[in-house]
Amino acid sequence: MNFDAAVGQLSDRDFSGLHQDDFLLTWDRSEDELRAVLAVADALRVLRSVNRSCRIFDSGLAVSLFRDNSTRTRFSFASAGNLLGLEVQDFDEGSSQVAHGETVKETATMISFMADVVGIRDDKFVGAGHRFMTEFAGHLLQSYAAGVLEQRPTVINLQSDLDHPTQSMADLLHLVHEFGGLENLRGRKLAMSWAYSPSYGKPLSVPQGMIALMARFGMDVVLAHPPGYDLMPEPLDVAARAAAASGGSFSVTDSMAEAFAGADVVCAKSWAPFAAMEERAALHARGDSAALHAVEERLLAQNAAHRDWTTTADLLATTAQARYLHPLPADITGVSCEAGEVDAEVFDRHRVSLYKQAGGKPYIIAAMILLQKVADPATRLRDLWGGAGPRWRK
Amino acid sequence: MNFDAAVGQLSDRDFSGLHQDDFLLTWDRSEDELRAVLAVADALRVLRSVNRSCRIFDSGLAVSLFRDNSTRTRFSFASAGNLLGLEVQDFDEGSSQVAHGETVKETATMISFMADVVGIRDDKFVGAGHRFMTEFAGHLLQSYAAGVLEQRPTVINLQSDLDHPTQSMADLLHLVHEFGGLENLRGRKLAMSWAYSPSYGKPLSVPQGMIALMARFGMDVVLAHPPGYDLMPEPLDVAARAAAASGGSFSVTDSMAEAFAGADVVCAKSWAPFAAMEERAALHARGDSAALHAVEERLLAQNAAHRDWTTTADLLATTAQARYLHPLPADITGVSCEAGEVDAEVFDRHRVSLYKQAGGKPYIIAAMILLQKVADPATRLRDLWGGAGPRWRK
Amino acid sequence: MNFDAAVGQLSDRDFSGLHQDDFLLTWDRSEDELRAVLAVADALRVLRSVNRSCRIFDSGLAVSLFRDNSTRTRFSFASAGNLLGLEVQDFDEGSSQVAHGETVKETATMISFMADVVGIRDDKFVGAGHRFMTEFAGHLLQSYAAGVLEQRPTVINLQSDLDHPTQSMADLLHLVHEFGGLENLRGRKLAMSWAYSPSYGKPLSVPQGMIALMARFGMDVVLAHPPGYDLMPEPLDVAARAAAASGGSFSVTDSMAEAFAGADVVCAKSWAPFAAMEERAALHARGDSAALHAVEERLLAQNAAHRDWTTTADLLATTAQARYLHPLPADITGVSCEAGEVDAEVFDRHRVSLYKQAGGKPYIIAAMILLQKVADPATRLRDLWGGAGPRWRK
Repeated sequence: MNFDAAVGQLSDRDFSGLHQDDFLLTWDRSEDELRAVLAVADALRVLRSVNRSCRIFDSGLAVSLFRDNSTRTRFSFASAGNLLGLEVQDFDEGSSQVAHGETVKETATMISFMADVVGIRDDKFVGAGHRFMTEFAGHLLQSYAAGVLEQRPTVINLQSDLDHPTQSMADLLHLVHEFGGLENLRGRKLAMSWAYSPSYGKPLSVPQGMIALMARFGMDVVLAHPPGYDLMPEPLDVAARAAAASGGSFSVTDSMAEAFAGADVVCAKSWAPFAAMEERAALHARGDSAALHAVEERLLAQNAAHRDWTTTADLLATTAQARYLHPLPADITGVSCEAGEVDAEVFDRHRVSLYKQAGGKPYIIAAMILLQKVADPATRLRDLWGGAGPRWRK
Repeated sequence: MNFDAAVGQLSDRDFSGLHQDDFLLTWDRSEDELRAVLAVADALRVLRSVNRSCRIFDSGLAVSLFRDNSTRTRFSFASAGNLLGLEVQDFDEGSSQVAHGETVKETATMISFMADVVGIRDDKFVGAGHRFMTEFAGHLLQSYAAGVLEQRPTVINLQSDLDHPTQSMADLLHLVHEFGGLENLRGRKLAMSWAYSPSYGKPLSVPQGMIALMARFGMDVVLAHPPGYDLMPEPLDVAARAAAASGGSFSVTDSMAEAFAGADVVCAKSWAPFAAMEERAALHARGDSAALHAVEERLLAQNAAHRDWTTTADLLATTAQARYLHPLPADITGVSCEAGEVDAEVFDRHRVSLYKQAGGKPYIIAAMILLQKVADPATRLRDLWGGAGPRWRK
Repeated sequence: MNFDAAVGQLSDRDFSGLHQDDFLLTWDRSEDELRAVLAVADALRVLRSVNRSCRIFDSGLAVSLFRDNSTRTRFSFASAGNLLGLEVQDFDEGSSQVAHGETVKETATMISFMADVVGIRDDKFVGAGHRFMTEFAGHLLQSYAAGVLEQRPTVINLQSDLDHPTQSMADLLHLVHEFGGLENLRGRKLAMSWAYSPSYGKPLSVPQGMIALMARFGMDVVLAHPPGYDLMPEPLDVAARAAAASGGSFSVTDSMAEAFAGADVVCAKSWAPFAAMEERAALHARGDSAALHAVEERLLAQNAAHRDWTTTADLLATTAQARYLHPLPADITGVSCEAGEVDAEVFDRHRVSLYKQAGGKPYIIAAMILLQKVADPATRLRDLWGGAGPRWRK
C-alpha cells in the first residue's frame, strides 16, 4: 500500500455527504462515499505502519452501546477511537435503562454532551435494531440543532438487524487488496451462502450487508440458502437494484453447490430464517416464553435438516480458487462443535487470510469517523503524514 | 458567554481553599469558591466551543466509584476527566470489596497510586454516604502525608446522602445563565417541592443540595412537601442560616400550591421521608428483610396518598413564568409511568431547557477538578486560550 | 532516588532480551534484565515525581484480561499503561469466550490488532494459568509473524499459577530501597512463611515468585510451611539452583519460628497445598462438584489445624528487626477476620511500609512495558527528562 495512492483516491470524488452524518447502512451512501472510506482506511493503515500519529482529537469520547455480546467489534471500535485520539466510554444499559420513546431521546442526549461518535450494536431482533439507531441518531441531531449538544455526535452502526456496514466494508477492503483494486471485482462471482451451525439464531445482517454492498461493484452475487432461510426484503431489493445498476448480477438459489461452482469469493455462514425471527421478536415483545421455546425447538429441528450445508475442501475445489471469507467466529467442525459451518482443514488453510480480513475493521471504523469529523480529509491526512509525531517512540 | 468575562470573575476572589482539597459539600465552601467554580465552568465551555484543548494533564487517572446506578453523572464525570486529559478508570466494588474500617483505608490507597481525582457516588443509605466519602478522603490524605501517594488524589462528591454538589452547582450555573448573572438571583423565589413518583425511595440529597445552595445567593427559598417527608436536619439548618446571612429567606410549607405561587424557579421531584430512610438503613444493616419489606409497603401506601403533588400546566400558571428545573430523569405522567412528577405537556415545553441544565454538569465537574489541581487558574486558562492546540482537528 | 543514577544502572548491561518479548516468569530473565526493570522503574518514578511526562505512546491499547478478581493489580496495570500513553481496555470474557485450542488463538489475535501490551491474570488453577499465557503469547507471536498483527503485542504475567513477577519485582524494588542497593541484599535472611487464613485456596504464585526471585541475589531464603503445604516443583527447583548460583541459600522448614529467627525480611501469608490444588483442578475440569465440596471441607479442616501460624509481635521480636512484607490484602486478626495471617498491631506498625511496597507495582509494570517497547531505554528516558512536557500543568 502506498500513502499517496490512497489519498489520491479521494480526488475528484464527492463524499461530503459523510461529513457530520451518521453511517447506518451502506445503501444510504453513494459509491464515492464508500470509496472514500476504503481510501481513508488504507491511508490510516499506512500512517500507523510508518509510526505516524493518526490523532485528530486531543480529547473527546467515543461512546459504545452494545446490546449484544461482542469481542471483535468492541475492540475494533475501541481501537479506532483510540487511534484518532478519542477515549472509549462504554454505555452499559444494565446500570441505567434505554427504553423506548421518551427515554431514548433523553439517554441519547445525556451520554453525548462530550461524545464525538456513538457506536451501536443492536442486532438481536428483526425490525428493532435499525429503528433504534435511526431514532437514537435523530434525537442526537435534534439536541444538536436545539443547542443542547455543542457538537454533533455521529452514529456508527456496529451491527443492526438490517446491515453490518463495518463488517461488509472491511470485507470489501480485503477483496480490494486481494484482487488488486476495486475495478478488479467486476465480473467476479461471489457466493454468499447459508451454512449449518448448531446454534440457530444468528443475525441476518452479515449476509444482508454482504449482498447489498458487493452487488454495487459489478460482482455476480449469488445468495444460497435452504428453503425458508430468507433474508429481509429491503436488502434483497437493494442487492437486485444495485446489481442492475452496476452491471453485475444478483440471484438466489437453494443450492450451496450451485453458488460455489466457479466462484471467486465465497462466504458461508449460518443465519436465522427471517420469518421465524419475526415470529420470535413478536413473542419476545409479548413475553410469551412457552411459545418462544416452541419456536426455538422448531428452528433447531429445521436447522438440523441442513447439516450438509458446510464448507468442505471438496466444495471449495469446485470454485475458481475462491477467497474464503467469514466474519468470525466460525463454527468449525470437530473444533468448536461436532458439525458446523466449515471443516477444520479448510479453516486452517485460510486462517491467516481470515484474520487479515478481520484486521481491516478497526481501520474501516476509523475511516468512517475521520470522514464524519474532518471537512477536508486529504489535507488532514497529508498533515498527519508530514507533521504528526510518532505514535510510539520506539 | 465571553472568555475574558468568565476569567475576570476570578479576580480579587479567594478560592485558594479549593486547591488540593476535596469537594464534598457546597456548604463547606466559601462564596468565593463557589463563584470560582461557576467562572471556570464558563471559561472551559468557551474554550471547548472555540475548539481549544482544555488539557491540563498529559496522563493521569480519574477514578470513579459508583455505589448506585448512574448514567448522567457517570458520563459527566468521564467527560470532565477526559476534557482535562485524565483517563477514567471505574472502580467496580463487585470485583473486589470496599468494606468498612481497615479495608476502606487500604482500598482507597491501592486504587489511587496514580489517581489525580476520585469521584464517588454513595447515596443509598442516609447516614452512610457522606461518612464514607469523608473517611475515604481522609485515608487518601493520610497516605499522601505519609509519602505513600506521590500526589494528593482529591475527592469529588458525585452524590451522597447529604448533598449533590455537582447537580446543585450545575443548576446554579443554569440559573445564572437564565437570569443573566448571579446577582440577579437575589430576591427571586425558588420553590423546591416534593412530587409524587411511583417509586418511593429516591435520595434526599437533590432537594437538600438545592435549598442549601440557593439560599446563599439571596433567593427566597420555599421547601414544600407533604407531612412526614422531612429532609435531614443538617441541610435544613444550613439553608436557614444561609438565608439569614444572604438576605434571602427560607421557609417550609406543606402546600405545593403555596410554594409555586409567584415563584421564579420551581423544581419538583420525589424523595423519601428521612425518618423512614433512617429506619430502612438500620433494618438493612441488621439484614432484616421482612421488616424492610414492611417499611417499603408502608412507604408506597404513604406515597400513594400524595398523587396530587405533581407539576401541571395549571400549577405552573400560578408562577411568575418560572423556570422549571429537574435533575432528570423525571417520572412523566403518561410517559414513563401512569402518574408521576410532571405532566408530559409541561415536560415537553421545558425539555430543551432541562437538557441544557444537565449539560452544565460536565463543565462543573471539570471546573472543580481544575480548581483542585491548578494553583493559578486564571493564568492557566489564559494559557489554554492563547497557546493550546485544537481539541479536534476539523 | 536520583535520575542519573537510575539510568546509569542501565550501562554495560545486556537486557536486549526484554525488547519485543513477553514477561511471564522472572526465572526466564537474566539478572541484567531484572536489574534493568528495577532501574527503569526508579527512573520513571523520578520522572513522574518531577512532573515530567513519561509518555512513549501517543495512542495504543493496553489490554487486560483478568480471570480472577483484582483491585491492586488491575489499577497498577491501568496506571502503568496510562503513564506511558496507552489506553487500558479490559477484555471481559463474560461477554465473549476464550476457550481452549482454536478459540484462544483467534481471540488473542482479535483483541490485539492495535494492542501494544496484554496483561493477563490467570491464577485460579494450578497447571492452567502459565500454560494459558504461554499459549496466548505464542498465538500473538504467530499472528505477528504472519503479518496479521502490525505490531507485536507483548504479554505481561499479572499473576499465574507459577509466578507473580510484577509482585515479586515490586517487592524486590522495595527491598532495594530499604537496604540501599541490590548488593546489600546479599547474605540477608528472608523468611517466606505460610500463615493461617480462614480462606483456604489462595494462589501459590506469591511465595513461589518470592523464593525464586530473592534466591538469585544472594539472600538466604527460608521457606516455611506446615506439612502438606508444598509449593509447585518448578519454582522450588529454581530457588535451589538460583541460591547455589548466587552464593545464597535456600531451605525449607516446617517451623515458622525457625524461619523468622534472625530474619532480615519476613513475608507470611496463606496459600493452598499444591497437591490439593491439583486434585481440585482435576475435579473442576470433570465438573464433579460433590467431590470438590468434599475437598474444600477437608482443606478447611486441615487449615484450621494451623491457626498458630500467624505473625505476632513476639514472633517479629525474634527477627533482626525484619522488614515485614505482604502482597495485600492481608487477613488481619480481629479486623478482617477472627484469626488471620497477622496481628492488627503488627500490621498497623508496618502499614506505611506495606503501602509503599504496593506503590512500586505500577512503576514495575511500566518499566516492563518500556523495556519491551523501546530499543534504547537509556536514551529514551533521558529524552523524557530533557524534552518532555509536564505531566500535569499545575
